[in-house]
Amino acid sequence: MKPIKVGLLGLGTVGTGVVRIVEGHQADLLSQTGSPIEIASILVQDKSKNRNISVSPDKLTENPWDIVENPEIDVVVEVMGGIELSKELMLACLEKGKHIVTANKDLMALHGPEILAKAAEKGCDVFYEASVAGGIPIIRTLIEGFSSDRITKIMGIVNGTTNYILTKMSQEGAAYADVLKEAQQLGYAESDPTSDVEGFDAARKMTILGTLGFHANVALGDVEVKGISNVTKEDITYGKRLGYEVKLLGIAERQDDHISISVQPTMVKKSHPLASVNGVFNAVYVYGEAVGETMFYGPGAGEMPTATSVVADLVAVVRNMNLGINGRRGFKPYKEKKLKTDEQIASKNFILLHVADKAGVLAQITQVFAQYDVSLESVLQHPNASNPNAEIIIITHDASKASINKVLKQFESLDVVHEIKSVYRVEG
Amino acid sequence: MKPIKVGLLGLGTVGTGVVRIVEGHQADLLSQTGSPIEIASILVQDKSKNRNISVSPDKLTENPWDIVENPEIDVVVEVMGGIELSKELMLACLEKGKHIVTANKDLMALHGPEILAKAAEKGCDVFYEASVAGGIPIIRTLIEGFSSDRITKIMGIVNGTTNYILTKMSQEGAAYADVLKEAQQLGYAESDPTSDVEGFDAARKMTILGTLGFHANVALGDVEVKGISNVTKEDITYGKRLGYEVKLLGIAERQDDHISISVQPTMVKKSHPLASVNGVFNAVYVYGEAVGETMFYGPGAGEMPTATSVVADLVAVVRNMNLGINGRRGFKPYKEKKLKTDEQIASKNFILLHVADKAGVLAQITQVFAQYDVSLESVLQHPNASNPNAEIIIITHDASKASINKVLKQFESLDVVHEIKSVYRVEG
Repeated sequence: MKPIKVGLLGLGTVGTGVVRIVEGHQADLLSQTGSPIEIASILVQDKSKNRNISVSPDKLTENPWDIVENPEIDVVVEVMGGIELSKELMLACLEKGKHIVTANKDLMALHGPEILAKAAEKGCDVFYEASVAGGIPIIRTLIEGFSSDRITKIMGIVNGTTNYILTKMSQEGAAYADVLKEAQQLGYAESDPTSDVEGFDAARKMTILGTLGFHANVALGDVEVKGISNVTKEDITYGKRLGYEVKLLGIAERQDDHISISVQPTMVKKSHPLASVNGVFNAVYVYGEAVGETMFYGPGAGEMPTATSVVADLVAVVRNMNLGINGRRGFKPYKEKKLKTDEQIASKNFILLHVADKAGVLAQITQVFAQYDVSLESVLQHPNASNPNAEIIIITHDASKASINKVLKQFESLDVVHEIKSVYRVEG
Repeated sequence: MKPIKVGLLGLGTVGTGVVRIVEGHQADLLSQTGSPIEIASILVQDKSKNRNISVSPDKLTENPWDIVENPEIDVVVEVMGGIELSKELMLACLEKGKHIVTANKDLMALHGPEILAKAAEKGCDVFYEASVAGGIPIIRTLIEGFSSDRITKIMGIVNGTTNYILTKMSQEGAAYADVLKEAQQLGYAESDPTSDVEGFDAARKMTILGTLGFHANVALGDVEVKGISNVTKEDITYGKRLGYEVKLLGIAERQDDHISISVQPTMVKKSHPLASVNGVFNAVYVYGEAVGETMFYGPGAGEMPTATSVVADLVAVVRNMNLGINGRRGFKPYKEKKLKTDEQIASKNFILLHVADKAGVLAQITQVFAQYDVSLESVLQHPNASNPNAEIIIITHDASKASINKVLKQFESLDVVHEIKSVYRVEG
């Protein structure tokens, strides 16, 4: 049988894993697909570099167009990252009828619709399982596993770096800056950690999950994003005392036809399955009208887990080639996107205030909540007697974001409220 | 577009859910498949019975052959259960070129290979996602999501009844018989609970998961089965004290080419993700050589969760019909099945002994372990002073089942060992 020839764009961490799996699992891949799979050409930055994997030097090229223009190559696996050049290469590959497997969340979050439209036009497959939550097959789960259901909520711990930092802060009572530095030394955080810690990486992944879950073209700009750089060890301590863990959650919600997508540090009740997802692990919690609660847990990054997803997509492409159905099983959003307003977005909230330590303060504060119809689940005063201010922690019942914003604005004008220390969404 | 006509065998809990989803989600199903889906005929036991769902009486039949013989029906959804009649009907449907979606684990565990072979011969689809772990799409995850990996271990909490009982025993310190009675009153356990509590239901599901995970035809008889009816509240208390929860685990393991499959109450370390799966929830933990640790969590039964999986399979059949590829994406085991011997099956073990309360006993006992090369992780004496015997709990390091059996046999002949109270496999 004629081998399927694969061009690999990038031989970094994930690319190396892809070579290991494709070469190490030849017999299994042949049994599963009916075709031998051969990595025929590999784009690298520097052909002369020493690598911890042996590849035949005549397969290496420093010019991506050698792969794009090579008529023998059936499938291109893109694990080089970046946006503009990747997009140009992907569109050129599709133009030439090559199928694509990519792990590039940035590319798919920003240019997914354009790339998928070109793929549909050319009858090509574009699969991107590895772009979200590394080794967890969440994309095919949303497309195939829940095809019959109507999903109302997706909550994801989809960034391993921030989950590592928050886990360490929680388990060791450590401060954000210290744990970040340690994470950088261990290679769990980049030297410029902005994309992870400010939630941008998670936002790109939620763009993809929101699109799949709600069948509407979610754009990156639709995601409201807040990172973890302002999470304090006090917040985590108070949260724990009340039965919560702080997690950076991507939250995509739907009510009737309206959706909202956000990324934010969230107080997650300890009994919720997401609360015990620790370290660099990822998990995606999916709530469907019919199925109810489900959760998918696994490694969110790393050479071999991510490569597992990439090669599973490659297997799917090859199976489709042998069935002659490429480009015909793609995901096509069919719903109009309608975003929720701040009046429609509702959640419980955790609010920590520093207030004047005198009589009548609590009455004034609770009066503000009442004025905007926000009812309260619990109020705790003086949880920390060592602080010169009185401290009040309020957990609200479900309240609209608009109401909470009005409450907070009013607090700013109240003399007795010295500082709004922190505000978290509450889940679970 | 011509509607796809579905025959539904059974209108019990799951069948009712299937009708609700297919009728309630018409527009979504049409968008997803490109075809209207119509439930054209429904097998019931008694047409005159009152139901909590409205179905047109002229669609009901009490004769399954009305559906099998109806040339207009494209897909048969089997949610009637049972084995012999179901098998006969399924084979007859396939003979007539009808595709099958079934939730019947007993049928697939006992006659899966025969049914799948007939389906391949006739170019028909047979999908059975709902047969294992209700709403969790674990079957497509194993077939598609991990197609590139080599799975070495699958551990499942795949029976909700026993997980409910063990959770209650753990959380409330209650005895097995009391919790079973309560579960029966609540409808979580059958009036004859044997199939659940003795592990037979879980064994059928592990037969299916083992076949999929290891690409070899696992038979029900290959599964070693032990239920929970002998789990005592003392075992659970001691387990908790040492950091374990007792769970009924289905365990399928592979080492090189040899596999073993079992169902047994197991001490699961509290830090393991399976330890916090509580109540009627199910979860399947999958370990792959490349991906590492993953876990899939959700409802294991119930009208709507199970129906979600059934209708997701129906969507897959309809998509395949529109692509003209039915019967060509089925799962075919390609590996020879080789079972591990007792010498090859290894695990940690928890052993609780009642022994004579006198000097030298511990030395005699540990000598027996040493004799069979079983090394010990920890030994606890006298954890319960109220007992007239001395009690010893031993946690072994990994040891072969053969060695542990020899140790236990030798204990039976030792005067100082009054009773081997319990032996559990240990995981996590």
